[in-house]
Amino acid sequence: MSDPSDELVASVFARECPSRHVLADVTGKWGGLALAALHEGSYRFNALRRRVDGVSEKMLAQTLQSLERDGLVVREVQATIPPRVEYSLTPLGEQVAVKMKELIDLVEGEITHIRAAQDTYDTERAG
Amino acid sequence: MSDPSDELVASVFARECPSRHVLADVTGKWGGLALAALHEGSYRFNALRRRVDGVSEKMLAQTLQSLERDGLVVREVQATIPPRVEYSLTPLGEQVAVKMKELIDLVEGEITHIRAAQDTYDTERAG
Repeated sequence: MSDPSDELVASVFARECPSRHVLADVTGKWGGLALAALHEGSYRFNALRRRVDGVSEKMLAQTLQSLERDGLVVREVQATIPPRVEYSLTPLGEQVAVKMKELIDLVEGEITHIRAAQDTYDTERAG
Repeated sequence: MSDPSDELVASVFARECPSRHVLADVTGKWGGLALAALHEGSYRFNALRRRVDGVSEKMLAQTLQSLERDGLVVREVQATIPPRVEYSLTPLGEQVAVKMKELIDLVEGEITHIRAAQDTYDTERAG
């Protein structure tokens, strides 16, 4: 039995494809950093906010909500007093986070070359 | 001889780290799609604009300029009449594009599960 929905092939290149919106959640200004941080382990909200230096409370909350809706992040309320809220990755979120982490490692590892390229570019245009 | 700048370790988690800005270029709204398209081969500007469905001329030009400045994309003017301008990836751009493509393939491949998670999330909150 084939499910008709299986015949649709997602393409982020298509403007209206839902996969493009998910890619935006994952790679958006804070989404990638939140996933990479949660790849280190689960975090409480305020600890995560400290880890993702510079994110506002509102933006982090929105980012986590989108990632939770996409099924990549789990928000777990523990019945302690006061209640403790922890965020962690789902198995699919873990897969996505691994890819994001590889991308980050590459950019961080090559930052010296990238900055040299930026300097050359800026010097050529200033001359 | 050690270069003192080698001792600095880049971290996208730090607000002012240059690597965070590069990550934003690479994963920004159009940066990731432009890199993934150029991973297919070199493109002329208008063909690339058609491939990255929905991008404006201005946004694509800005995106390509940032990626060129980061040393990830090369803009080549061929001495034809009229001149032909082609964009392609540098070796480092190719490495980054491969990682981005893996991330895109994962999101596209899991879109059915992601949409199911979104439906569940929306239903629970509407109930």
